[in-house]
Amino acid sequence: MGEIRLDFERTERVGFDEAILCAGKSDTQLRTIVDLVLERDERCLLTRLDEAAYENLPPQQRSLLDYDPVSRTAYLNWTPPAERVSADVAVVSAGSSDMPAAAEALRTLAYLGVGARQFIDVGVAGLWRLLEHVETLRSFPVIIAVAGMDGALPSVLGGLVPGVLICLPTSTGYGASRGGETALHAALASCAPGLTVVNIDNGYGAACAAFRTLRAIGRGR
Amino acid sequence: MGEIRLDFERTERVGFDEAILCAGKSDTQLRTIVDLVLERDERCLLTRLDEAAYENLPPQQRSLLDYDPVSRTAYLNWTPPAERVSADVAVVSAGSSDMPAAAEALRTLAYLGVGARQFIDVGVAGLWRLLEHVETLRSFPVIIAVAGMDGALPSVLGGLVPGVLICLPTSTGYGASRGGETALHAALASCAPGLTVVNIDNGYGAACAAFRTLRAIGRGR
Amino acid sequence: MGEIRLDFERTERVGFDEAILCAGKSDTQLRTIVDLVLERDERCLLTRLDEAAYENLPPQQRSLLDYDPVSRTAYLNWTPPAERVSADVAVVSAGSSDMPAAAEALRTLAYLGVGARQFIDVGVAGLWRLLEHVETLRSFPVIIAVAGMDGALPSVLGGLVPGVLICLPTSTGYGASRGGETALHAALASCAPGLTVVNIDNGYGAACAAFRTLRAIGRGR
Amino acid sequence: MGEIRLDFERTERVGFDEAILCAGKSDTQLRTIVDLVLERDERCLLTRLDEAAYENLPPQQRSLLDYDPVSRTAYLNWTPPAERVSADVAVVSAGSSDMPAAAEALRTLAYLGVGARQFIDVGVAGLWRLLEHVETLRSFPVIIAVAGMDGALPSVLGGLVPGVLICLPTSTGYGASRGGETALHAALASCAPGLTVVNIDNGYGAACAAFRTLRAIGRGR
Amino acid sequence: MGEIRLDFERTERVGFDEAILCAGKSDTQLRTIVDLVLERDERCLLTRLDEAAYENLPPQQRSLLDYDPVSRTAYLNWTPPAERVSADVAVVSAGSSDMPAAAEALRTLAYLGVGARQFIDVGVAGLWRLLEHVETLRSFPVIIAVAGMDGALPSVLGGLVPGVLICLPTSTGYGASRGGETALHAALASCAPGLTVVNIDNGYGAACAAFRTLRAIGRGR
Amino acid sequence: MGEIRLDFERTERVGFDEAILCAGKSDTQLRTIVDLVLERDERCLLTRLDEAAYENLPPQQRSLLDYDPVSRTAYLNWTPPAERVSADVAVVSAGSSDMPAAAEALRTLAYLGVGARQFIDVGVAGLWRLLEHVETLRSFPVIIAVAGMDGALPSVLGGLVPGVLICLPTSTGYGASRGGETALHAALASCAPGLTVVNIDNGYGAACAAFRTLRAIGRGR
Amino acid sequence: MGEIRLDFERTERVGFDEAILCAGKSDTQLRTIVDLVLERDERCLLTRLDEAAYENLPPQQRSLLDYDPVSRTAYLNWTPPAERVSADVAVVSAGSSDMPAAAEALRTLAYLGVGARQFIDVGVAGLWRLLEHVETLRSFPVIIAVAGMDGALPSVLGGLVPGVLICLPTSTGYGASRGGETALHAALASCAPGLTVVNIDNGYGAACAAFRTLRAIGRGR
Amino acid sequence: MGEIRLDFERTERVGFDEAILCAGKSDTQLRTIVDLVLERDERCLLTRLDEAAYENLPPQQRSLLDYDPVSRTAYLNWTPPAERVSADVAVVSAGSSDMPAAAEALRTLAYLGVGARQFIDVGVAGLWRLLEHVETLRSFPVIIAVAGMDGALPSVLGGLVPGVLICLPTSTGYGASRGGETALHAALASCAPGLTVVNIDNGYGAACAAFRTLRAIGRGR
Repeated sequence: MGEIRLDFERTERVGFDEAILCAGKSDTQLRTIVDLVLERDERCLLTRLDEAAYENLPPQQRSLLDYDPVSRTAYLNWTPPAERVSADVAVVSAGSSDMPAAAEALRTLAYLGVGARQFIDVGVAGLWRLLEHVETLRSFPVIIAVAGMDGALPSVLGGLVPGVLICLPTSTGYGASRGGETALHAALASCAPGLTVVNIDNGYGAACAAFRTLRAIGRGR
Repeated sequence: MGEIRLDFERTERVGFDEAILCAGKSDTQLRTIVDLVLERDERCLLTRLDEAAYENLPPQQRSLLDYDPVSRTAYLNWTPPAERVSADVAVVSAGSSDMPAAAEALRTLAYLGVGARQFIDVGVAGLWRLLEHVETLRSFPVIIAVAGMDGALPSVLGGLVPGVLICLPTSTGYGASRGGETALHAALASCAPGLTVVNIDNGYGAACAAFRTLRAIGRGR
Repeated sequence: MGEIRLDFERTERVGFDEAILCAGKSDTQLRTIVDLVLERDERCLLTRLDEAAYENLPPQQRSLLDYDPVSRTAYLNWTPPAERVSADVAVVSAGSSDMPAAAEALRTLAYLGVGARQFIDVGVAGLWRLLEHVETLRSFPVIIAVAGMDGALPSVLGGLVPGVLICLPTSTGYGASRGGETALHAALASCAPGLTVVNIDNGYGAACAAFRTLRAIGRGR
Repeated sequence: MGEIRLDFERTERVGFDEAILCAGKSDTQLRTIVDLVLERDERCLLTRLDEAAYENLPPQQRSLLDYDPVSRTAYLNWTPPAERVSADVAVVSAGSSDMPAAAEALRTLAYLGVGARQFIDVGVAGLWRLLEHVETLRSFPVIIAVAGMDGALPSVLGGLVPGVLICLPTSTGYGASRGGETALHAALASCAPGLTVVNIDNGYGAACAAFRTLRAIGRGR
Repeated sequence: MGEIRLDFERTERVGFDEAILCAGKSDTQLRTIVDLVLERDERCLLTRLDEAAYENLPPQQRSLLDYDPVSRTAYLNWTPPAERVSADVAVVSAGSSDMPAAAEALRTLAYLGVGARQFIDVGVAGLWRLLEHVETLRSFPVIIAVAGMDGALPSVLGGLVPGVLICLPTSTGYGASRGGETALHAALASCAPGLTVVNIDNGYGAACAAFRTLRAIGRGR
Repeated sequence: MGEIRLDFERTERVGFDEAILCAGKSDTQLRTIVDLVLERDERCLLTRLDEAAYENLPPQQRSLLDYDPVSRTAYLNWTPPAERVSADVAVVSAGSSDMPAAAEALRTLAYLGVGARQFIDVGVAGLWRLLEHVETLRSFPVIIAVAGMDGALPSVLGGLVPGVLICLPTSTGYGASRGGETALHAALASCAPGLTVVNIDNGYGAACAAFRTLRAIGRGR
Repeated sequence: MGEIRLDFERTERVGFDEAILCAGKSDTQLRTIVDLVLERDERCLLTRLDEAAYENLPPQQRSLLDYDPVSRTAYLNWTPPAERVSADVAVVSAGSSDMPAAAEALRTLAYLGVGARQFIDVGVAGLWRLLEHVETLRSFPVIIAVAGMDGALPSVLGGLVPGVLICLPTSTGYGASRGGETALHAALASCAPGLTVVNIDNGYGAACAAFRTLRAIGRGR
Repeated sequence: MGEIRLDFERTERVGFDEAILCAGKSDTQLRTIVDLVLERDERCLLTRLDEAAYENLPPQQRSLLDYDPVSRTAYLNWTPPAERVSADVAVVSAGSSDMPAAAEALRTLAYLGVGARQFIDVGVAGLWRLLEHVETLRSFPVIIAVAGMDGALPSVLGGLVPGVLICLPTSTGYGASRGGETALHAALASCAPGLTVVNIDNGYGAACAAFRTLRAIGRGR
């Protein structure tokens, strides 16, 4: 009962390999998964790996992981290339509480070989900080807009930039923020046309969506 | 069973008289209420009086009502003064579908003797239309921000103007707009500090809140 | 009270002009908007224009509209070009009840000059109808997946195709379908990576998102 | 205050004995229940017995329990028969995070004397892993489909297999997964006909429903 | 745009043919579907065909339909066999407001060739009416329990009968009934073990689930 | 399919006869029910009988009904006694929009032979109108507090009166009133101790609860 | 900031003194409240006092409290009378997980001087355990029905007993139990007439409602 | 990844400086923010700084903070002026569990230089405690009404006082209190006109709204 089968053929089908969502998996399951990947000499991205779960992995497994506690991601059997790729994706976040989701997106983009540039603390309550960057942002083919609470950032951006705009709502806030639902629904109901949305706190998914777009342009791996 | 008692003493207590919320009242109840007001020679504001209900009132009652179908309001025994009062309240709305709620606020303000100026179609998806007016809006002591769908307008305004900012969410939109709940929750969860919020589509309440503020300043009736 | 201001400058900013969401607008407002567009000799797309509202427009306005009752869209001052553009977008729908949303997407794509091909009745309950088309679908840079009820189609597609996948949940179904919320949440929670989602029944938004992507690739107008 | 009465007559009425749902019961209550069962020399299945509660039982009680931490179940006074029964139920799960619910179903089936075979990691995002097994699955009279997040697995299976299909939604996932509600609603709203559904994470209930079916067929105890 | 493809191969795969959910389909779509079925000389079940939609079909199509307004179902190209089959399914309903859902289940069972017996007005508020039938009900291999409002019927039945118990919640009631959600959730949360549940008002789905069970027993077609 | 069984024995069990909830029943069902009652020469209370359904009954049935359109109730085979009973129940309502629910309670009380007195328009926004009546209200053994919107009336009353206090929330209001849910939840969450609550708009249930109380006291029939 | 004022006059107004809801209060606030009560030589009931908070009170305060950990209640300055009062209230609970709420009701009744008898483990899934007690239960003027999960117990009781029936839903269960909401809504939507309902897990409120009823009968203090 | 940008220009735009919402920020982020403020020799208000996070700051930073554990606020580089300002704001709270939100409002008002007076334990269940203060409360230009559970306080106050009334719902309570949503919705749905509402537990926002009002009157800084 409980052995694991990984989908190593995914890369062929959709062009990028499976990530391991660690939340909800037991320590034993995580250990088995890491072993399976190492046995086949594959590389792998682990997401939602919180520090306690990371610490519970055996030391020899930990030594092979490039772990980042803010984004709760780890690279297995993989190192980002030394040369800097050109930045095709802008990751724009409204507040510093949105950092974990933004960081998950950035770490995933790096893993997928996509160059990205981060713009922080440009929420709409301090509109001028955002407007300063509008011209720069208009030049990016893909923007990931990270915002919790009222989720107003994507709507404002959507009326200002012509590129692909992927909204990443976060669970920042309390009360009427409803664990990210208000930001999610605000992005979906936006009056700015052509925005798309991913799940709350799903930085990994936003990065994959950006990767799908860039590959269609011919800029992906 | 079913006679009516009106609260004619409210003006003394809170400084403005009771409005009649017509939605949910039968034709018979509405007719009785109008008669009661006329008998005592009082004036009265009727809200949420849709056209069918208005048409079902007896002609002699209709002839005494100043009815506006957009805002679904009627004045009974009352005419706005001829001289124009200075505009203390700005009513800013995001889209033309927000007009009924904005109009209810404007008609209520007029009834309460408060001067107001309307700014329309200044939603955040067309940010420059809003920014054109920022300097003007900064001079108003009270702003009512009317917005449905994603409800991003109040958050943007809240970071730009120093005055009292009352958010009036509307039921505009579909799907993730959830009948105005998304705009309501976005206004409540706004990262711009010091906004306050009234019920969905409650233009009457927003106007009363503005009136309470202005009277505290000494500009009310 | 109630004049209209349109955002004719949007095309310059985000590369496509404003559509008019007719739901929630009064007959008078719609008439004024059409007049404003004609006065400036602009073109325009009207969405959510149901048949009753269309019939209430004056005959000379109706004669200038190319109206489609299934998608509830109308073109004003615009005719699709005679030559056929190559199909860059696949619009895949699960059932015939999803037709109105799919048709809104297709009509918007045509308006934006984007070629599209429709795949119908390929829901996952009849999986082989979908699998027949997988190889063809893999060649499209952008796919719009239209699905209501359980919304399983996007998840299945997401594991099969490498391109950009925009999920368009619909309000098809009853009970646990919750007016489209189940399909919406299923698409957001999909375990297939890199899907993005638009609002329930928002065919217009899905088409605009496809347009943003294609322009980034250099295939848009 | 607080003594316990067990329903030892249930077996006669519905053909299988009462299980003890341990969640929400105090350590004292659990101890009393185990004693009551032992006194009457009955057997018993305990569910939702987490490790902390198990550890708080007195050692002599623990020594009589066959406890499994993944499924959080324990057998009291009972050992599975040595000979292997033929597998009448297929337990198909989408991801390794669904293991606890799947394991609760499997342990309950074993307790009820029903043979089962497990199929793991066959979620629809890797459709071919599922399709490999379709012919095998078509031969099972009863299938339990375990899936969280988007819950697309039951809909796909429902169109492929003719047998009884019991959907077991799980609380796997985050954000729009809504603690299992999305998988639950997706299974209920499925366009594949004739699926039935049990409560979120209710592996015990799914197994009992399978048992009721098999007994009707004449394959149960 | 908008042609229709039916899934005539479903019978081979899952053993019964596709029903047409008429709700949400336009008059034109319904007419086309009926024509497609007739062209191929297939038979077909139509569900959720309300009287207005039925009346809008062309007379020659109506003449070929066996329509029942209570269940809103129609048989196309099909007549129930003259000989009475033995009743394998009990359809038990709590109140007369649950009749449309119960009738949809009964008409679907008849279409699928399954014999059924109806027990009406046996809600738990009049417990003795239910208890009178317990012995009879215990002899049925499959019971469909139809209940709205508080949905207590399935829980009571679940503790009394050993057979397969399929709960069919209905949208009967108001306020806290929440359009059937309370009955749905009560059935899912039932403390009686081994119940399964279908979507609110989904009489068709309950009948299909019964059919899957009976075929596994070898009593189906 | 579709005959009706009424629970004529209920009076013996719980002391009052079954009422017929007409909402959700077809015209044919209503006609049959009235006939069944008349055949057995019983009396009966019909609730939620809207005017259209009443008008669709055959004239000879209508002539036997004492119908009240405000409460949407009808007495069949029953006339209130001529002599006035002492008033044991106070029905206190906050606004005139709450009249239908209050009237359903009053008509049911009359049917059950219970004397009642109505207090209207005593919502908390005009607190003095309520306080005027406090001494009188304190003398009633049972009070039914009818309130929609914010549902503040029961909390205020609960701290002022010692008697049994049954809260009857109504669906009055819009937006954040959520169809009566806010009033319902406010009554349940009240900080005034010992209130009990019935379903939204359930005037019939509130009256039955009052009747149960009075009979326990020895003042009922 | 933060001193406390207690409502010692409540007894005069509504006939019983204020209880202290300890949840949400800081250790400092609890200590102050106990001191205030002792200073005035009053008695007091504390509810929702979990063991950690109880342990954090100073020893000399603890020595004056009669604390019960199951119900999380404490009596301050009060001892139940030695002589046994006749039992006027039946507290009927469905499962042993419902014990904390049932115990809170029983402890509150004792504090209020009301005699009560407890009936446990009589959920509807084992209907005969309930039916055994029906005749006894019919003799109680007031019944408190405690039930979580599907909340079917009150509906069944409501059709069997003539007395006052107060439903106390509990947060027992998981998934579709929704923290007690399903049991709450099921009780409110019950088809058994004249039930009333209190907040989820509000044993204190149910006891106070019973007390109000008994005092109206003349059996209270 | 993860540097911080603060909005030091906000004071110029909206007249008061940015507060730091500490919830959701990591220890590292908080430390960096405090350093940034100190480097620029600015002052700052920190909110939602719970005791654990406060203790994790370095000692030299803690020594510069004026921290209050009840309100979870800290002043950085700032001391309230010695002279007492006149009290322009009344902070009225219903129960002692509402203290944290009330205290956050009071501490923010003090930081903004606004005088305030607190009225405690004046919930509507003990109405006379509130009525005692009505005359005093009528003299305040701004009242903040703090209430959880049923949230009835604002409605009662709204009908009694003429000033600006800002409702601050709190997450006090359980079950039907729904974490503050019931108090929030009750305030929004209030039948007392002209109330405005802020987010659940948002004492900071209520104080900022009061500040905006007082500055409009000319009494602010």
